[in-house]
Amino acid sequence: MPYTPQQLSDRQDIVDVLNAYCRAIDDNRPDDVITLFTDDCVYDYGGDLGSFDSKAYAYKFFRAGTDKIYRRSAHYVTNVETDFVDDDMVDTVTYLAAWHEFHEDIPNAWIYGRYIDRFVRTAEGWRISQRTVVTLGQDDWPRAVTYMDRNVLPPRDRSGDGG
Amino acid sequence: MPYTPQQLSDRQDIVDVLNAYCRAIDDNRPDDVITLFTDDCVYDYGGDLGSFDSKAYAYKFFRAGTDKIYRRSAHYVTNVETDFVDDDMVDTVTYLAAWHEFHEDIPNAWIYGRYIDRFVRTAEGWRISQRTVVTLGQDDWPRAVTYMDRNVLPPRDRSGDGG
Amino acid sequence: MPYTPQQLSDRQDIVDVLNAYCRAIDDNRPDDVITLFTDDCVYDYGGDLGSFDSKAYAYKFFRAGTDKIYRRSAHYVTNVETDFVDDDMVDTVTYLAAWHEFHEDIPNAWIYGRYIDRFVRTAEGWRISQRTVVTLGQDDWPRAVTYMDRNVLPPRDRSGDGG
Repeated sequence: MPYTPQQLSDRQDIVDVLNAYCRAIDDNRPDDVITLFTDDCVYDYGGDLGSFDSKAYAYKFFRAGTDKIYRRSAHYVTNVETDFVDDDMVDTVTYLAAWHEFHEDIPNAWIYGRYIDRFVRTAEGWRISQRTVVTLGQDDWPRAVTYMDRNVLPPRDRSGDGG
Repeated sequence: MPYTPQQLSDRQDIVDVLNAYCRAIDDNRPDDVITLFTDDCVYDYGGDLGSFDSKAYAYKFFRAGTDKIYRRSAHYVTNVETDFVDDDMVDTVTYLAAWHEFHEDIPNAWIYGRYIDRFVRTAEGWRISQRTVVTLGQDDWPRAVTYMDRNVLPPRDRSGDGG
Repeated sequence: MPYTPQQLSDRQDIVDVLNAYCRAIDDNRPDDVITLFTDDCVYDYGGDLGSFDSKAYAYKFFRAGTDKIYRRSAHYVTNVETDFVDDDMVDTVTYLAAWHEFHEDIPNAWIYGRYIDRFVRTAEGWRISQRTVVTLGQDDWPRAVTYMDRNVLPPRDRSGDGG
């Protein structure tokens, strides 16, 4: 801000990884999902899903979701914000709206959240080295979720009267 | 069209403001929302919400929405189109899909619309100096909305038979 | 990957066409929709809607949809991935989430899919010369849809136990 041509190129490469992630998830190609993260990536899904940093576990995690739980899905990523920590490290915040149809006979469900990622430049291109998922909301999601804390105004400031 | 590197950088800075707006709204940080608009910004929400250009009123407007009405929200911005009026002024059209959960015990609701904005370059970066919100549709929205007029074809041209 | 400034400009011009498509559809301006495609564009919607390459039919197709079937719509495009075949041809994959309200008294419906497009550079700018639409999912869609095939893992590999 302003962005150099190199930063605009890096930014697009990073967005391409986010898009490739969604496409691989929705295609049910969990092995391809894993290639977008570094081998030592730290995943934090919050709540019951918790944190993990084992590639073997990540493989099982994504395979179980895309193949065994969800019959179909559509992952939309928008609102990508980038913070260039240095030339080879970029922190990002991305909005996710993820629709799911289940193998179980339960209603289709949406989950709304943010991916808070750290990207690092590797020999194979930009990869995700840290991923934290926070939940903004949901419709018909079949499991308990842990919501992001929203800022709470002090009571004396709750004086708005508009919409 | 084509875009210079400077225009691509400006475009990204503008999209960053749109994204920061959504994040501040969904975080319930109304004071930070206001910093993204010029002090003399003209807001036009149409319908019952009407127009206003008072910063004091804008402050109350956003605070009331994010804190008192909505328990949770998720604002997705996509389809950003830019029109460079000159080097320091850019008109934009942005699609919004905004999900809301309410403090009231009523169904979660979506509103679908467009932000029609004018951005100006300021010493603090790009800021919104005019915002018009038009509504494309809604699901379960609890208040009356005023819809955008769609183009209506003359009757003699209503000859399509496809899908 | 990396992108040259020229490729970043071309990429933005292409995204602008995708955005203009959505805006023209949702405005009910089918004639303007057609200008975004080459005269010999091949459309493939799959399933009952099938394929066609007649501009006259495309005109009827879009006019019927935007004017006679849908009272209102909102088309969101995200996750745009580009593959530069050469300087004047780019293949893209784009996510679509399309909301519709109908003239008929039936529930509002969503369809989730991907546009798989070929863009070519013309004297008038980038235009779509091939469009294939694949369906990822739907909610309350009133017609039969043909879903994209998801990758199916061999049974011995269905060993995940996570989420």
